[in-house]
Amino acid sequence: MAGTNTARGTLPDTAPLGPAVILVHPQLGENIGMCARAMLNCAVTELRIVKPRDGWPNPAAVSAASGAASILENAKLYETTKEAVADLEYVLATTARNRGVVKDICTAEAAAKLIHEKNAAKTQKCGILFGPERTGLENDDVALSDAILNIPLNPGFSSLNLAQAVLLACYAWLTADNPFKLMEIERSLGDTEPAQKGDIENLMGHLEDEIAKGGFFRSPEQRPTIMRNIRNFFFRSGMTKQDVRTFHGILSCLAGKRSWK
Amino acid sequence: MAGTNTARGTLPDTAPLGPAVILVHPQLGENIGMCARAMLNCAVTELRIVKPRDGWPNPAAVSAASGAASILENAKLYETTKEAVADLEYVLATTARNRGVVKDICTAEAAAKLIHEKNAAKTQKCGILFGPERTGLENDDVALSDAILNIPLNPGFSSLNLAQAVLLACYAWLTADNPFKLMEIERSLGDTEPAQKGDIENLMGHLEDEIAKGGFFRSPEQRPTIMRNIRNFFFRSGMTKQDVRTFHGILSCLAGKRSWK
Repeated sequence: MAGTNTARGTLPDTAPLGPAVILVHPQLGENIGMCARAMLNCAVTELRIVKPRDGWPNPAAVSAASGAASILENAKLYETTKEAVADLEYVLATTARNRGVVKDICTAEAAAKLIHEKNAAKTQKCGILFGPERTGLENDDVALSDAILNIPLNPGFSSLNLAQAVLLACYAWLTADNPFKLMEIERSLGDTEPAQKGDIENLMGHLEDEIAKGGFFRSPEQRPTIMRNIRNFFFRSGMTKQDVRTFHGILSCLAGKRSWK
Repeated sequence: MAGTNTARGTLPDTAPLGPAVILVHPQLGENIGMCARAMLNCAVTELRIVKPRDGWPNPAAVSAASGAASILENAKLYETTKEAVADLEYVLATTARNRGVVKDICTAEAAAKLIHEKNAAKTQKCGILFGPERTGLENDDVALSDAILNIPLNPGFSSLNLAQAVLLACYAWLTADNPFKLMEIERSLGDTEPAQKGDIENLMGHLEDEIAKGGFFRSPEQRPTIMRNIRNFFFRSGMTKQDVRTFHGILSCLAGKRSWK
């Protein structure tokens, strides 16, 4: 499979092999282009198209792909869905409604995990079928699939367009094992560094001196409690060295101002 | 907060309270409408708009919302981002690039979990900021946020439009605690029932009789092994009662055919 799709050239070598996206009888070229764009955002690069209504190639697809033209250039064209899935080992059919067929229905996330597992276990080649804009997949297409992929949305309003369905299915695949993501939550620090606790304690000393001079503590008994509360705020707030310097400056400025009065 | 947004009328009562989606200076009405549509798919209903370029209301937004007009009708308009976030307790700023500011950067999924936790713990009202199409959020808007929301995509091609970014952020929120989803994988059975193991064993008996008559077993020694392999296939294949009837029919048909020869 490697090397059959040069659109992968835009990806890091470490990117896993995504599922083939198979558009069955898509109508508008613009939507095919939007699908290509959605795919490349999610590092999914193999597009297969079954008998597009308006022929192929389609200039409207290229302009809608805005930068993802490599996906379109490498797209493979087929006459029938059967031919489009012939070399695949695991196929999911995307449908919005229950088709009354006997088949597993997977969420996009469960499908994504299955695809990763099948690729990891045996580099089984997987594909996801998407039907035409207006009608969705025909039952004869669904019959060629191992399972149904269903994107669970608001049951009162489930109205995705073709490219949005492709985006969510591909994004679920990317998110299930995202090589581009280091952590769930990561602190960006810009060009400064985190303050050390001693820096913050120095600032507390500066602050305590100045507010003591200003008569902030009504009674000596209150002083430790008030300072503990103030410490709690500053020590939890993730100060940087720059923040500490700024607060020293603010304190000096305000203390100076007060002395002018 | 309950009852302030009648767009929630389209949702089941059990639907959790989603984050407010705040569009800062959006340019095209069409994109605002597409955002509303993306939101409602994900059961997120509260839209806030800060000074849209082309004024408000905007007919282009309504036609692009295709069915999600209730979101637009209930949208709140603000002059500044500061006013739009004034009543919120936790705010995320969506950005595609590192802003060199000191702030936590969350994936869409981590942000979704945070929002659910904050809502569950104290019904803290959360919001997600999205910048204008061309430029994204300004640094002054990012400064009003608790954390940055970043959608981790293919670093070689990260090119979402506004409504796609809203869709992925809202979908991550829905997926983190989806009340509309029963299971990860669920077998749809149509109008038939799963076969009982005895049904399948009867079929195996029918099959074994017919292929024995046809001379399929070259030697009596092979017979148990061959039948075990055939059993393995039929018992793992999730047969329904209808499948069993169909296979009895196929066997009778083929056996009858053979006897005509």
